[in-house]
Formats: sequence, structure tokens, C-alpha cells
Amino acid sequence: METSDEKIHYLRNPLNIGLVGFGVVGKGLYDVLQTTPGLHAEIKKICIKHPQKKREIAGKYFTDDFNELLQDESINVIAELIDDADAAFEIVKACLENGKPVVSANKKMIAQHFKELLYLQRKYNTPFLYEAACCAGIPIIRNLEEYYDNDMLSEIKGIVNGSTNFILTEITENNLAFDEALAKAQLAGFAESNPRLDTEGHDAANKLVILAAHAFGTVVSADQILYTGITGITISDATFAREKNCSIKLVAHAKKLPDGNLALSVLPKFIKNSDDFYNVKNEYNALETVSAFADKHFFKGKGAGAYPTAAAVLSDISALRYDYRYGYKKIDQLQHHPVGFGYKLNVSVGARHSAQIDFNAFTQIESKDIIEGRIRVNGTVEASDLFRSAWWKAKGVSLILTDDVSDKGHVRFSPLTQYKFTGTGAIHQAGAFVE
Amino acid sequence: METSDEKIHYLRNPLNIGLVGFGVVGKGLYDVLQTTPGLHAEIKKICIKHPQKKREIAGKYFTDDFNELLQDESINVIAELIDDADAAFEIVKACLENGKPVVSANKKMIAQHFKELLYLQRKYNTPFLYEAACCAGIPIIRNLEEYYDNDMLSEIKGIVNGSTNFILTEITENNLAFDEALAKAQLAGFAESNPRLDTEGHDAANKLVILAAHAFGTVVSADQILYTGITGITISDATFAREKNCSIKLVAHAKKLPDGNLALSVLPKFIKNSDDFYNVKNEYNALETVSAFADKHFFKGKGAGAYPTAAAVLSDISALRYDYRYGYKKIDQLQHHPVGFGYKLNVSVGARHSAQIDFNAFTQIESKDIIEGRIRVNGTVEASDLFRSAWWKAKGVSLILTDDVSDKGHVRFSPLTQYKFTGTGAIHQAGAFVE
Repeated sequence: METSDEKIHYLRNPLNIGLVGFGVVGKGLYDVLQTTPGLHAEIKKICIKHPQKKREIAGKYFTDDFNELLQDESINVIAELIDDADAAFEIVKACLENGKPVVSANKKMIAQHFKELLYLQRKYNTPFLYEAACCAGIPIIRNLEEYYDNDMLSEIKGIVNGSTNFILTEITENNLAFDEALAKAQLAGFAESNPRLDTEGHDAANKLVILAAHAFGTVVSADQILYTGITGITISDATFAREKNCSIKLVAHAKKLPDGNLALSVLPKFIKNSDDFYNVKNEYNALETVSAFADKHFFKGKGAGAYPTAAAVLSDISALRYDYRYGYKKIDQLQHHPVGFGYKLNVSVGARHSAQIDFNAFTQIESKDIIEGRIRVNGTVEASDLFRSAWWKAKGVSLILTDDVSDKGHVRFSPLTQYKFTGTGAIHQAGAFVE
Repeated sequence: METSDEKIHYLRNPLNIGLVGFGVVGKGLYDVLQTTPGLHAEIKKICIKHPQKKREIAGKYFTDDFNELLQDESINVIAELIDDADAAFEIVKACLENGKPVVSANKKMIAQHFKELLYLQRKYNTPFLYEAACCAGIPIIRNLEEYYDNDMLSEIKGIVNGSTNFILTEITENNLAFDEALAKAQLAGFAESNPRLDTEGHDAANKLVILAAHAFGTVVSADQILYTGITGITISDATFAREKNCSIKLVAHAKKLPDGNLALSVLPKFIKNSDDFYNVKNEYNALETVSAFADKHFFKGKGAGAYPTAAAVLSDISALRYDYRYGYKKIDQLQHHPVGFGYKLNVSVGARHSAQIDFNAFTQIESKDIIEGRIRVNGTVEASDLFRSAWWKAKGVSLILTDDVSDKGHVRFSPLTQYKFTGTGAIHQAGAFVE
């Protein structure tokens, strides 16, 4: 609790922000700060590539020398908001090494360097916050870190990429083809500068890396996740979905398996219209936590856009005033949950030609049809098999989870007694962080 | 950040809980702790009224002397889980005065004694957590306190009472009369020991007292809130709702008004089937936050029941390990938002007889019909008028907000330029807490 002295300190001590990057989110943060005088936070200096370029705000704010920000003792927080993941890592690293608290929204950079960043935070005892890296303004990371901090959390799943969700909404509701829908997303500003980061699932996988660490203490790299994107989704898939009162969403999923391993996947899924995720449309994101006693908690909000992202960055900046930092408690816990593949998936696979489908990959085939000139195979595949193969990611092929569609007995993520271990799990023993 | 020494401390230092009350939630907490050994928390002593009564667990745990818990130095947290609000306050007060961290789920007690409890927490520098008091396990209070801690939050609204929501779901979906639906809720264990606390809206108003303090720093008592319950809701209202593709929910609402005051209400409302709140059914609760840049965030989860409540209590207990406490930052902020009534409401009023309706209360009447033998008046009323009168709470009368139903121009909570001040606002100047 604050003493009255601390309270005065809180009210008077301004936050001086050193901003790196002045793109969509950086400009958004600038706008947001203009309307929140109560926060006592202001941007003192902005580091950009081309400081001489004409901009809305005075030239004196700009520099192309990051050291100016780093060495300015009056700057007490750096907001790193650039696109380039490699350059972003160098900036965050330099901040931590110099004891400068830093905030970032760069999920790719954070996912790629998670262990190093954790090491640096601890070595230099300096906070690094990145709520905006997952689901923009929805307070996900902080809740996973602070609230669900006992061993009862069993599962999280979410729509974590606004761009692909926007595209899928256009495909399923407005019957646009993938390319048209992507163009519309780009026009609306809901796509990364490199859209393949979104559409091929890399961005969602990077976010799942971050979520898995904060939810379960499991630190992996994206290539240890069973994932794909939405480039294979066709209007025919959308029609099939609508006939079943479903939509198609790209779902990131982490779940403790009965063998103690953690299933990690990012895959398209048919979602029934009675499901909370069904109404998560356009650029919205959502996350559901499942825990033993609290049951399901569902969080929904805008997952893309300059202002929702800037609002999350601002909440982080504001939290630094109280010296908030992630504890990474679950990474330190004794019980670890390495990523595993000992489970099966019920899927619907669509393809132009029979030869594109590896029928041997199915442990069970429920149905095989030609619908609107497209082959559709519904059945069960082993996660470990999928992880090792690439046929289902090839051009013209779509693989969509069907748990909400099929009425047949499911093995996927079933309770312990019904669970059939495949024996091929735990390919990657990606344990917790060890310094 | 933890040093390695602190980390060992975290892993080894057990939480010894002194439990007060062994009813539904207390027993739920006991059950939950049995399955969460990783938390290193155990119940050391349980204070109850009748310790000699035969129970599932060993008699040595029980006492009827609260001082045994208070004076036991090995007990480092008290969980107060009794029904009686007055006795609960004495217990929490004694804990704070003796520097014993305490957790409670008793919203009535907390709402009634908010200022005193805040004073005691600060005077004795002792934490008091109560996440379970609002929406059971959904992490609402902590997010309002920690995440939405800048001045951008403009509005929160929610379904915060599981019992009334269960009853309304039965009325609107299964065509039960109010009394039948209440009996079913009681059978399912989703009603307070005194059901009027729920059905007359007192419980939801108490929760809104707590939410308003953490969201906006506005500390009021429940009688400063414009509220009612659901006892007047009839099958005829439910039919009317279904015809408009709506459901009826009891909605707690706090919103900053253009005049700087805070509108606080708990009223039944027609909710369209496209609204996220529409799918909040049975004992589920939900809360939506609206902020300038992050836009809307929606939280949903179970809001009643032994385990969801116990899970929230456990999250609080667990947070005490890291010495977490509410900062009540918004109460200390310079800008205050006293409760105000300078706004209008679009409503649909049903009654058995014309004489039950005060037609003078309407500033505008949109329609006046007899539907299924019941008079129904749709129109606009002033919040200040409603607050001063009681006709609309009388037996046989139902008043339901219609914003989602009517297509006419709305004045309620409209943007500044369209806003018509009534000049009667700010009846209660309930400012922030001053020690």
C-alpha cells in the first residue's frame, strides 16, 4: 500500500517515454497520449530511420540515433514499436542491459528470443512488458501471469490473429475468395506489412509461444507447434461450414494432455453458431481459459488496429509506474509440461485431387465425398503424423478441425479414460527455461 | 523480479489458511485445495458456529472461537466465507486491525462498509482481497484495478448476478413464471439464503458499488444507485422480448456522463440476439468494459456456484503470497466522478392496470398498447424522476430498458452533442474517499 509520500510520488513523477518507431502503432500511441493528460506521461524523443521526413509533430522530437534515448536519464521507459524483429531485439536487449524499462508489441521478436529475453530481464533486473503482443488491448498476458497462477489451468484457446479472422469472416459471410478477402483486409489496415506472417499462421504461432509460457510455463519455439494458416481455405469450405451452422476460425490451442505434455496447435476449425467464438468476427480476437474449478472464462475484444494496440502499450507503460513486472512464476515451478503430440484430431480435409491427400495418414475415415467438385475426407489423424508431414499444408488442400461438426465419438482431447495414447508423443522435450 | 533466494522462499513458504465458515463456498475451497498441492496452501483451522456438528473432515480442525485463528501466528491468511454481513465485517475488521491478510466473498458487507474497509486497510497496512465478490471467478476487480488504470475507461456494464440471470433464462427460454423459475434456481443452488437479496436487485447493486469504486474511483452506497430487480418480470414480457429477437437480462451499468458525473443503474433490459450479452445464460455472468482506444472488452464466465467462487477466493489467497493488494488508485486521483442522474432512459413499462403507471413520468410516449391483456407503454423517462419514485417497482409493474428494441432516436447515453441535460442531475454528491 502506498504511504502518503509514495502517493505524492505517484501523482507527480511523470513518465518520459522514448519511442522507437513512428508507424501505425507509434502514431496511435502518440494520439492516445494527447487525450490522456491524467496519466502524466509524455513522449520525449522518437527514434526513427528518417528523422528529416516531414511529419505532423515538431522535428525536435525526432532522432535517428537510438543512443540518444538510451543515454537520456530523464527517459524512464522505452516503447519499442518497429516492424523489424531483428532490430527490435537489439533495441530491447540494449534497454535491458542498460536498466531501462521497455515495452514492446513485437510478438515475432519476443517469441523468437523468449529465453534470452527472460535471461536478460533477470540478469539486469529490468522489466519488459508486452501485453500488446497478444490480442492487442485484451488483458491476456497479465491475467495468465497473475490471476491463473495456480495449477488448475488446463487449457487455453483463442482467436489471436485479427487479420486472418477478418479474412475468414469475409470468406464465410460474404463469400469472397481468399485473395479478395486478403486485399480487403489490407485496405482496412488489418494486415502485417508481410501478409504471409498472418495468413500462413506464423503470427498466431508466435503468439501461442508467448501464451504457453505465461499460461503453462512451457517455453518453445514456433517450429515446435503444430500449425498452419488459412491460405488453403476455399469458398467451398465456407459453404460446407454454413450448411452445418458453423463458421471457420483459426484457433490457437494449448492443452495439458493426460500424459503431462502440452498440446500446442494453431489450426482452422469449424465453430458452431452456439459457441462464444462464433460471434468473434472481423478483426476481433478472443481467448478462453479452462480451469478445473473456475470453469471457462471467455475474453473478447479488438485484436488489431492502431488504437487497440496503442491502448495495450499504454497500459504497460502505466504499469511500469508501479514497477510491475512479469514474475514468470510457472516457468520456475517444479512441474513442467513439455510440448507433446500424443493425441488425435478429427478433421475435414478438402482437396482438388485425390492424390493431394495422404490417405495413410488417417487412422479412421468417416466419410469421403465429392462436394461442389472438391474432394472432402472426414476422419481422424494423429497429431504426431501431421507434425512430421506437409501434404496437408500444400496449395489447394484445406485441413479443418471438425470437433464441433461430427457427431461421431471423438478421441481428440477426450477425458483420460477414453484417451488413446499413440506412443509417438513428446517429440520435442522443450522444457522450462534453465539459465 | 525474484532473486534466487526469493524464489526459494516462494516455493517453500506455505500458506496457512484460517477459514471462517464452512458453508457451500467454504467447503468448495476445502475441496479445491485438496486437488491443488502445487499451491502449498492448506487450511489450518476452521471457525464455525457449531464445531460439535458431525462433518466430513476431522474435528480437530474446527473451533467456534475466532480468536484462535487470529492469535495463531502460523496462520498467515484468513478466508472469511460466512453469510451474515454484520458478523463478516467484524471478522474482517479484526483481521485488518491485527495485521492479518484477509480474503472475502461477501459483497453485501464490502459494499456497506467500503469506506471503513479502505480506511482500515490503509491504517493497518494490511491487504484485503475480494475478487469472488463480483462475478465469482472472472477476474474483474483485479483487471479494473490494475489494467484499466488510466483515464480512458468510460463505461462498464454487466450481468453480475447469477441467480437472477438463471431465473430470467428460465422465464424467457422455458416460459416459466417468476415463482417457478425462482424455485428451480433454489433447487440448483443458485440463490442466496435470502432470495430477495438477488431478485430485488440488492445483490447486483452491492456489486456495482464495488465495481464503481475500482473502475472509476466513485464510492457510493447501494441506495445511491438507480436499481430494481426482476420480481416484476412476467411471461408476457418474455413473449414481447422473443418477438423482438431479444432476451431480458438484469444489467448493472456505470457510465461517465458528459457532465462528468457517473450514471449508476441496475435495471432489466431487452438484449438483442446479436449482442454478446444475449448468450450469457443461466448462472453465467459477464462484464463489458468500454474505453476510448481499446474499445470494448467482454469477459464471461460462471458467476455462481461453490467451485467458481472458491476458485476466485483461491486466486486471492495465492496473490497474497506475492503481497498483492489493491492500490485503489482511482480513488486517489484528482478527477472525481460523483453519481449523477442527468440522463434519460428509453423504457417499456408493463402493468396490469393503467392506474399503476405514472404517465406524467414520461417525457415522451412512443406507443401505448394492450398486449395479451397487459398494458404496455414504450417511451422515455428521466433517470432523476425514476430515482425519486417507486411506482415502477410496485407489484405487477415491469420496467425494462429498450435501447436495443426501439428504432426511434435515443437520448440515453448518447454522444455529447445530442445529449439533453435535465438539470436535475447530481442529486448525490458522493465523492471519492477522503480519510
